[in-house]
Amino acid sequence: MADTPVRRGLLGHLTRRSVLAGAVAGAAALPAVAAGSGAAVAAPSTAAVAGLRTAQATGQTRRVTIYAEALPGGRFGYGLAPGEATIPGPLLEMVEGDTLEIELVNTTNQRLSIHPHGVDYDVFSDGSPFNDSFNEPGETRTYVWRSRERRSGGGRGWLPGTAGYWHYHDHALGGDHGTQGLQKGLYGGLIVRRKGDLLPDKTFVVVFNDMTINNLVAPMTPMFDAVLGERVEWLCIGHGSMEHTFHLHAHRWADNRTGYLDGPNDLTQAIDNKDLNPGSSFGFQVIAGDGVGPGAWMYHCHVQFHSDGGMSGVFLVRNEDGSIPDHAQEAIDRYHGGHGGHGGHSGH
Amino acid sequence: MADTPVRRGLLGHLTRRSVLAGAVAGAAALPAVAAGSGAAVAAPSTAAVAGLRTAQATGQTRRVTIYAEALPGGRFGYGLAPGEATIPGPLLEMVEGDTLEIELVNTTNQRLSIHPHGVDYDVFSDGSPFNDSFNEPGETRTYVWRSRERRSGGGRGWLPGTAGYWHYHDHALGGDHGTQGLQKGLYGGLIVRRKGDLLPDKTFVVVFNDMTINNLVAPMTPMFDAVLGERVEWLCIGHGSMEHTFHLHAHRWADNRTGYLDGPNDLTQAIDNKDLNPGSSFGFQVIAGDGVGPGAWMYHCHVQFHSDGGMSGVFLVRNEDGSIPDHAQEAIDRYHGGHGGHGGHSGH
Amino acid sequence: MADTPVRRGLLGHLTRRSVLAGAVAGAAALPAVAAGSGAAVAAPSTAAVAGLRTAQATGQTRRVTIYAEALPGGRFGYGLAPGEATIPGPLLEMVEGDTLEIELVNTTNQRLSIHPHGVDYDVFSDGSPFNDSFNEPGETRTYVWRSRERRSGGGRGWLPGTAGYWHYHDHALGGDHGTQGLQKGLYGGLIVRRKGDLLPDKTFVVVFNDMTINNLVAPMTPMFDAVLGERVEWLCIGHGSMEHTFHLHAHRWADNRTGYLDGPNDLTQAIDNKDLNPGSSFGFQVIAGDGVGPGAWMYHCHVQFHSDGGMSGVFLVRNEDGSIPDHAQEAIDRYHGGHGGHGGHSGH
Repeated sequence: MADTPVRRGLLGHLTRRSVLAGAVAGAAALPAVAAGSGAAVAAPSTAAVAGLRTAQATGQTRRVTIYAEALPGGRFGYGLAPGEATIPGPLLEMVEGDTLEIELVNTTNQRLSIHPHGVDYDVFSDGSPFNDSFNEPGETRTYVWRSRERRSGGGRGWLPGTAGYWHYHDHALGGDHGTQGLQKGLYGGLIVRRKGDLLPDKTFVVVFNDMTINNLVAPMTPMFDAVLGERVEWLCIGHGSMEHTFHLHAHRWADNRTGYLDGPNDLTQAIDNKDLNPGSSFGFQVIAGDGVGPGAWMYHCHVQFHSDGGMSGVFLVRNEDGSIPDHAQEAIDRYHGGHGGHGGHSGH
Repeated sequence: MADTPVRRGLLGHLTRRSVLAGAVAGAAALPAVAAGSGAAVAAPSTAAVAGLRTAQATGQTRRVTIYAEALPGGRFGYGLAPGEATIPGPLLEMVEGDTLEIELVNTTNQRLSIHPHGVDYDVFSDGSPFNDSFNEPGETRTYVWRSRERRSGGGRGWLPGTAGYWHYHDHALGGDHGTQGLQKGLYGGLIVRRKGDLLPDKTFVVVFNDMTINNLVAPMTPMFDAVLGERVEWLCIGHGSMEHTFHLHAHRWADNRTGYLDGPNDLTQAIDNKDLNPGSSFGFQVIAGDGVGPGAWMYHCHVQFHSDGGMSGVFLVRNEDGSIPDHAQEAIDRYHGGHGGHGGHSGH
Repeated sequence: MADTPVRRGLLGHLTRRSVLAGAVAGAAALPAVAAGSGAAVAAPSTAAVAGLRTAQATGQTRRVTIYAEALPGGRFGYGLAPGEATIPGPLLEMVEGDTLEIELVNTTNQRLSIHPHGVDYDVFSDGSPFNDSFNEPGETRTYVWRSRERRSGGGRGWLPGTAGYWHYHDHALGGDHGTQGLQKGLYGGLIVRRKGDLLPDKTFVVVFNDMTINNLVAPMTPMFDAVLGERVEWLCIGHGSMEHTFHLHAHRWADNRTGYLDGPNDLTQAIDNKDLNPGSSFGFQVIAGDGVGPGAWMYHCHVQFHSDGGMSGVFLVRNEDGSIPDHAQEAIDRYHGGHGGHGGHSGH
C-alpha cells in the first residue's frame, strides 16, 4: 500500500506541511496554542456556527530558523530543520499583528536570501542584493517581517492590512532578482490571516514555476488529499518567466481576498480559472466536493501547451468515511500510467 | 444588399444564436416561456423601471441534444441540430437553480467531450479522459450540469453561487486536455444568471483562441450589430496557449460579475481592457453607444502583434431608427478593403 | 551634485510632470485654481481630516495643445509645447464632469493620432485609421474627451463613471493599431478622478512597454522620489506585445479603483504584484515608507527574464527632513555600477 500513488501523494502532501502550520493543518484540533506557535491557532471558537475555528491575533513575535539547503538534482530548498528542506518550503502563517523573526541559515555555497510579499519589512530585511540584504555562502542572517491590521487612511479610504495569501522567495541567487534561486526551488507560501478569518482543515500550496508545479511535472506533481466536506484552502503562487492560468475542476471561488462573498448581494465574480503570473499569488477556501461529490478532480494550468507538458495534478476528494471511491482510484491509476477505463490514457 | 459586409456580419451573428437563448436574444419579448426553454425567460418584469426584464428562476431540468460535427477546413463545431454546428457553439443559458442534461452526439471520427466551467457536475460529467468521461467516435453520452444560488458558508463568508459568464469546451480531442479540439473550434459560451439579473437585448460571444477570434481573422471576424441604446451583453472567453487582452473602444464596464457597480460608492475599477487568457472568461453589459453615439467601434486584442495579425473586429452601433450612419458604413468598407476616407486603410 | 544619480532621477521625474498636473504634483498647495487648469485642483479641502485635499468637479471644458514630435534615437513623444516632448507624454488629469479638447499638432513626417482609454469620445475622436481619425504628417486635428459620473442604470446596477487610472496612446503610426507609435514612445497617463477622491502629493507614471520601462532600461529607468509619509500615487500602464507583472517592494494596495479599502470589512484583495499587460492600466495611492521606513525600494517587472533584462527601477523614500539615508544612497550607488556593500552588485 505504501507504494501506491495515493499513498505517495498523501505523504508528499504531509511532508510539505510545516510545524508552524501544524495547528491548522490537522483536521483534529490540537489543544490550542502549542509552544512557539502563535500562528492561526486552533483556539476555542467563538463563531456562531459550532465547529468553525477562526484566526485569533496574538501580537507576538516568534523566532523561526530556516535552513536553505542544496537538494539532489541541482535543486535548493528551505526547511525548518537541517536535512528537511522541501519544495516549496515550509508554509508560514501569521495573524495580523504578529511579527516573524526569521533566522536564515545558508548551508549552501551560493549567496541567497529570503524576500516576502505582502508584509512590512525595512530595507535590512528586503532580501535583495540591491539593499545589501542577503546571505553569503555559509552565513546566517535575520530577517524581520511584521504584519498589522487595516486602518482608516483619512478621507474615505482604508489602508489595507497585511492579511492575504502571500509568498516568499530567494532574491539573490544568480543575479539581483533570484532567478536561479527560483528555478532551483527557493520559494514557499506565506499566509497572513485577519482576526476572525475562518481556519481551514487543510492548506495546499501550488506553485506554477515556469513549466512545473512545485518543480515537478505530471504525473509526479502533488496529489492533494481531502475528505468530502472538509474546508480546504488553496494558496496559488506564480514564479519564473511564463504566463499561466490556474484551473480547478468542479470547484469555484469568489475573486477576492478569501474566496467567499461578503453577503448575498456581493457582485464579486465567481471564478474557477485565474491568471497566475510571476510574483502574483492568491488563495481561497472551498468545501471539498461541495455539490459535486467525491472523486479525483484535476487542477492544471489552462494554457494548453502547459497542461499537455505536465502542468496538471490531482485533487482527491475521498468519501466521508475516508475511503477512496473506485472511480477515483481508477482515475489515479490511469493518471500514473495504468491501463483502465473505456478510453485508456493517452499519456502526457 | 445580402452581400454587403454589414449584412454578412449580421447574419453571422444571428446564426450563432441558439434556440436556447432565443427568448433573450430578441429585443421583442416573446410570450414568456417557450416550450423547452427555461433559460432566462422574458417573463413579465417586476423591475421598478418599466421595460426592464430580469432573469427568473425555474428550477427545472432541461434536456438539450448537442451534435459535435466536422466542419470544412479541418474545423469542428457543436450544434443544436445535425448540420448546424457553429464556432463558437450554441450559447447556453441557465438561471441559478436550473439543471441542464446535455446529450452529446459525437458524429465525428475522433474522441471528444464537453466540459463546462463554473457549474456543478460529478466525475461522470467531467468531460475528461482522466475521469473516463468522453465520447468515443460515434458515441452518444449524457452530461449533467447543475446550478445553484449563493448561500451562507458559516462564519462571515458566503459561498458563491453558480452565476457567471462561463464557457464550455472539449477536453479530450488530441490529448487529455482537448488542445486539438479547441484548435478546431469545439467551444462555446455558457451564461448562468442570478435571479433578478437584468436581461440584455443581445449577447455577443467573443473567443480569443490563439491568434484568432472565434477561429477567424480580420476582416472575417464577427461584426456585432446593435442599435443605439440597446443593452448589449459581451461574453469574452480565452483559449489556446497565448496571452491576450480584450479591448472595446468607447465603452467601459465594472470589473466584477455583471459589469455594473452595485451603487454610487462602489470602488470596483472601471475598465475597457482586460486580460483574456486560456480558460478564463468574463462578461458585462453596456448600453450601445452610451455617451459616445452611433458608429463603427473596434474591439480587438491589445497585444500589438495580435491586433496587427488580425485579432480585431467591428461593433456596429446603428442609429436609433436602425439605419447605419454614413461614417460607420465608410469605416466598414475601409475595413473590408475598400478605398475611402482621407487616410485610406493600411490593411492587416 | 547635479550629476549624481539621485539628482538625475529627480529631474527626470519633474520634467515628466505636466503643467496640467502641476496643481496636484506639488506637495505645497498652490492658490487654488490656476487659470486654464480645472483638473483636480488644490481647492480648500472640506475633508474631515485636516490637510487632506480632495478632487473637486468643475464641469468645465479645457483646451490643451499637444505636440507630437520626433526625438533623438528614432523615438517619438508628446509634449505640451514645441520642443518639450517626453516619454511618457504629459500626465493629463480630469475630474468627472470635465471635458478635454485636445488640439494635436503633428510635427512629424508620420501619420499618428491620440487615442484615450476610459473616457467618452465619438467616432471622430477615436484616434484610429479605422474611423479615419488621425493626423497626417504636419496636420493639426482636435480630439474631444468627455468624462461623467456614475449613474443608476435601471434595475440593481449602476453604470460606472469615467473615474479611473487610464492612459492615451497613438493608434495610427505603422499600421492600424499604432504598434510603431507605441514602440517609439507615443503614450502617456490619463487620470480621471471622482469628486471627493483624495489628491496625492505626487504621481508617478510607469509604463511597461515591451522590454522597457518608459522606453528605458536599468539603470537608466526613472527613479521616483518621495519623502517619508507623503501620499504617493502610482499609475501603471502596459503596452507592446509582452506580458508583465508590476511589483513594488514593501508597499501594498487594494486591488480596486483607488488602492484603498472602502471600510474595515472590505474583502478586496491586498496585492503588491499585479499583471500589467498591453492596453491595461491601474493605479493606487500609498503612504511612502508607511510601516517600513525610508530607503531605496525596488519596483520591477516580476517576470524574471524581464527584471534581469533591465525592467527595474528605484523608489526612493527620503527621511522626513528630506535627506537621503546612507543605506539608500549606497543602494543607489550600487545600482548605478558603483562598488559598495558586502556583496557588491552583480549587474544587469
